[in-house]
Amino acid sequence: MSESLPAADGILATITDPGDLKRLSTEQLTLLAAEIRDFLVAKVSRTGGHLGPNLGVVETTLALHRVFDSPRDRILFDTGHQAYVHKIVTGRQDGFDLLRQRGGLTGYPSRAESEHDFIENSHASTALSYADGMAKAFALRREDRHVVAVVGDGALTGGMCWEALNNIAAAKNRLVIVVNDNGRSYAPTIGGLADHLSTLRLNPGYEKVLDLVKEALGSTPVVGKPVYEVLHAVKRGIKDAVSPQPMFEDLGIKYLGPVDGHDVQAMESALRRAKGFNAPVIVHAVTRKGYGYRPAEQDEADCLHSPSSFDVETGKSLAASKLKWTNVFADELVKIADERPDVVGITAAMAEPTGIAAMAKKHPERVYDVGIAEQHAATSAAGLAMGGLHPVVAVYATFLNRAFDQVLLDVAMHELPVTFVLDRAGITGPDGPSHYGIWDMSVFGVVPGLRIAAPRDEATLREELREALAVDDGPTIVRFPTGAVPAPLPALRRVGQIDLLREDERKDVLVVAVGSFAGLGLEVAGRLAEQGFGVTVADPRWVRPVPIELTGLAAQHRLVVTVEDGVRAGGVGDAVAGALRDAGVEVPLRDFGVPAGFHPHGTRGELLADLGLTSQDIARDVTEWVAKLDAQPVANPA
Amino acid sequence: MSESLPAADGILATITDPGDLKRLSTEQLTLLAAEIRDFLVAKVSRTGGHLGPNLGVVETTLALHRVFDSPRDRILFDTGHQAYVHKIVTGRQDGFDLLRQRGGLTGYPSRAESEHDFIENSHASTALSYADGMAKAFALRREDRHVVAVVGDGALTGGMCWEALNNIAAAKNRLVIVVNDNGRSYAPTIGGLADHLSTLRLNPGYEKVLDLVKEALGSTPVVGKPVYEVLHAVKRGIKDAVSPQPMFEDLGIKYLGPVDGHDVQAMESALRRAKGFNAPVIVHAVTRKGYGYRPAEQDEADCLHSPSSFDVETGKSLAASKLKWTNVFADELVKIADERPDVVGITAAMAEPTGIAAMAKKHPERVYDVGIAEQHAATSAAGLAMGGLHPVVAVYATFLNRAFDQVLLDVAMHELPVTFVLDRAGITGPDGPSHYGIWDMSVFGVVPGLRIAAPRDEATLREELREALAVDDGPTIVRFPTGAVPAPLPALRRVGQIDLLREDERKDVLVVAVGSFAGLGLEVAGRLAEQGFGVTVADPRWVRPVPIELTGLAAQHRLVVTVEDGVRAGGVGDAVAGALRDAGVEVPLRDFGVPAGFHPHGTRGELLADLGLTSQDIARDVTEWVAKLDAQPVANPA
Repeated sequence: MSESLPAADGILATITDPGDLKRLSTEQLTLLAAEIRDFLVAKVSRTGGHLGPNLGVVETTLALHRVFDSPRDRILFDTGHQAYVHKIVTGRQDGFDLLRQRGGLTGYPSRAESEHDFIENSHASTALSYADGMAKAFALRREDRHVVAVVGDGALTGGMCWEALNNIAAAKNRLVIVVNDNGRSYAPTIGGLADHLSTLRLNPGYEKVLDLVKEALGSTPVVGKPVYEVLHAVKRGIKDAVSPQPMFEDLGIKYLGPVDGHDVQAMESALRRAKGFNAPVIVHAVTRKGYGYRPAEQDEADCLHSPSSFDVETGKSLAASKLKWTNVFADELVKIADERPDVVGITAAMAEPTGIAAMAKKHPERVYDVGIAEQHAATSAAGLAMGGLHPVVAVYATFLNRAFDQVLLDVAMHELPVTFVLDRAGITGPDGPSHYGIWDMSVFGVVPGLRIAAPRDEATLREELREALAVDDGPTIVRFPTGAVPAPLPALRRVGQIDLLREDERKDVLVVAVGSFAGLGLEVAGRLAEQGFGVTVADPRWVRPVPIELTGLAAQHRLVVTVEDGVRAGGVGDAVAGALRDAGVEVPLRDFGVPAGFHPHGTRGELLADLGLTSQDIARDVTEWVAKLDAQPVANPA
Repeated sequence: MSESLPAADGILATITDPGDLKRLSTEQLTLLAAEIRDFLVAKVSRTGGHLGPNLGVVETTLALHRVFDSPRDRILFDTGHQAYVHKIVTGRQDGFDLLRQRGGLTGYPSRAESEHDFIENSHASTALSYADGMAKAFALRREDRHVVAVVGDGALTGGMCWEALNNIAAAKNRLVIVVNDNGRSYAPTIGGLADHLSTLRLNPGYEKVLDLVKEALGSTPVVGKPVYEVLHAVKRGIKDAVSPQPMFEDLGIKYLGPVDGHDVQAMESALRRAKGFNAPVIVHAVTRKGYGYRPAEQDEADCLHSPSSFDVETGKSLAASKLKWTNVFADELVKIADERPDVVGITAAMAEPTGIAAMAKKHPERVYDVGIAEQHAATSAAGLAMGGLHPVVAVYATFLNRAFDQVLLDVAMHELPVTFVLDRAGITGPDGPSHYGIWDMSVFGVVPGLRIAAPRDEATLREELREALAVDDGPTIVRFPTGAVPAPLPALRRVGQIDLLREDERKDVLVVAVGSFAGLGLEVAGRLAEQGFGVTVADPRWVRPVPIELTGLAAQHRLVVTVEDGVRAGGVGDAVAGALRDAGVEVPLRDFGVPAGFHPHGTRGELLADLGLTSQDIARDVTEWVAKLDAQPVANPA
């Protein structure tokens, strides 16, 4: 591709609706694909965003919109970060200047942006389940619509996909599954063979689809057997790609492919054939992540999966390099692993972003990548712990929600020493609501015996990680946000397990500042002190269970204020209030945290301001509240 | 089998340890199997418990304990209700008189009971993940132990199993998976063929196992491709059972079978062969649920899966027939479905126990059984709702935890009208800690836009179910306990959405009684009234979000007491306290609910008493608390 900036008057400028694609010639489509790649590189190099995955689905997306009639037909993108091209061809080119910025285009499909978007959840492996439901609804309501789900080969490692395939096979509704297979095990030469094979196989007369599924099911709606058929179907497709054989005789879900996903005509032909079947079909598209942009193709880590702003010529990041929470964790984990042979690591397909890759490099035999499979991550960790090891499961905070039941019953009920390290906890920013790690302290706060630490800076992350790994009678969580670690926030002194960060002589207000909100808590304290309040700032370090010393500390004050980077419902504020009630400490409390809701994207700072989580807002609210507490006026500035 | 009571001096009486099994002859084993079936039927007919599944695994369990060396080797039972025979042969025969009763034998494996037990979680599809972790730990620590996981074909519909198989195939550790396949699609005659086939195939020289998995993986720890191989392996096994062919050439996990699971010798032979491989092996045992006890074999609903006490001759239940919560739901749902064609039902392999079978009978085209797949249940419901329907997902409260992330993001974030009906909410009883439905109000209470109803009797269940189905802009939960509905608890009047059940003239204490604890709340009120308090009892009906009228009501009282059948952490008590804080209502509150912990089994009544959730306990606690509130004495009995 040329690496010049996109021509303002090219074909791309004429595409404002998917219908525009249908009028293009083959030559024009090829030109358009190149223009789209230039556009993606130019835009994402400035804003940051998901690049590699979108470079890989340019032709697939064009073919999908030529063959299907969106939004009448539903095109669903699993793990929506591969929907940029879809956005480009559905009238949203102008939005890319503000991609993932506050008020600008989201990084995922968004119903508010377009009638062509449906799934806003960016967690993997869901699209086939949505598709199954939609196809069932359209069948029941006799609506003549197609449902197409685009799913990556990585997402197929998630159990939800198999649950869905099992049901799709049993239901037998019209439904097209595009497997966007960019796995490294496919050498580029497969594309040519695949194209040849797909031509051969696209003749329906050649396929003999036996309804073994129906036979296995009998007349009852019970499922169970068809999963075997489905799985077999997928496998057979793969197998045939390597060694072509006429073996489509016993598929539960029809299979077309493999198709060269960078050949629009081949994709279009396969999709048209798939559209014509009146049953579920898998179209197996072989693609290359980062295709067409050399720096992405050559990036061994992840094909420029989701860079921040970068130099277009080289692909090199333009972002300033600061010490990040992730780096601190990675560094300390390696040190611990050097010392303790019983420490093992687990990642759910995110070794690099979670930092556990550093341990994998040094101790490869002790780090397990389980695929996009958080449930298995948790329960296999339980098994490892039963075998005498101490697993560290490194995962984004938002993704551990997938394994709540496993953490509760498989790990905690068995009192097993498993440490979950939650990166990207709290309000994260540009990835939007389904990436916010704001639920963990509430949801995992109900798990009996689970201890949660929220470090506030580099030193406490290192310290609390070691404390977590010293716990041998139950699970622990260590949670921290995204981005750079703040300047050190040293404690004045430690009371039990609580660090006191500020301690005025007069004890009016106790500010309980959780983890990354320690700095905010200190700012709030400063503002309250200006109003004449005597303020103590406490970092409990371990927020679940509530440290026993905290109730005694609270009893010495006239007010308690909690600030936390998580949802208020069931959060640390609620927990501290409950602990005070149980201890008979009737000190009034106000809790500040993320209000209920699915909040939009933006920078972390913008979002916290929007949510009223600034020191100005909190100090003002506390002051107004005190003014209302007329029975016993607390503030006495004079 | 003979249906006489077990002979006290038979072979069974000599079995106190698995080692005792190894000395028995073939004839003795056959006799022992019959004795064990007599024992199971005799005991379970009195106590109730899981019968059908255990009758189906008698020979498999005997073979497992003859071939492996428990507890040195780890025998893991998925969905532990199939572990009764294991309990019988590991020294726990005496415990069966108090099976599932307070202080007696648990209905699942229990580490406190025996060194032969490991997994206490009764949720399905976990054992393979545990096994993967254990096998990895033993490999890393160079411990010479075998790991054997027994999993039912039903559990294989759960996504966790596929995540685990994917990883087991990649890890290639020594590990035996026994698939206990009692699916109805297997006619009994398969057993003979299977035996023949297994003999043929048990010659290792005959198998050519190609390491396609390793080729696909290359040298990186990334998974992704092996799942295809595994799935194919399982499928091939099934296929060979129907149409024997020498097709084991490309398995990622070795496969032995199918084996007649009621032939101890055949099972033993297969297991010995499996034990000898130094890699993961699937042993496919074909069994019949309820085998050897005619009333179970002939029970079309579920082969006497888990009866309460019954007549040994006929299998007929001896329990008194009362109107149960489940029946009320089932009845009302059918009425609603008759009226509204947009209402569809979803069950995760539990159509009968959740009551949704009644709707399936009348409207079969509108009820979907998705397998043991709660994640898919939630997200396919989202898809159905996007297609214009209103799904009712009927599930036990404890099992919805499996789908927290899907309810949060796939349903609630998309503001979709899906109604989750949670049966067995609260403390249930004999099934123990992993069946308690005590987490839902806390965990799902954090989900923005989700509304939770907790009906208190038959009339309110019918009413609140209809209210839930009238909500069209977000998800709803209707939760109720197990057992018989109580006598009607009519409201005196309704304030907003709150029902007032008692209203004294003087307003000292407001008791907020949640759902099935309405009766308890009234009892507490009665006791407090005897102490001279004026008491109001309010049933909020919808507990999340907290009804806005509740804060106003609380402000009229001097104390608030909440009682709920769920965990205290993040529960309704915490939520009401938070709502009062937000409204600036500084009325003291005490919350009563299930304390943190994994509580043992027993009857619901026994457990509630143990947990201090009786009217005596609560009224006493409240009275003592009031005595301590000396600043403003609330009670004024004079």
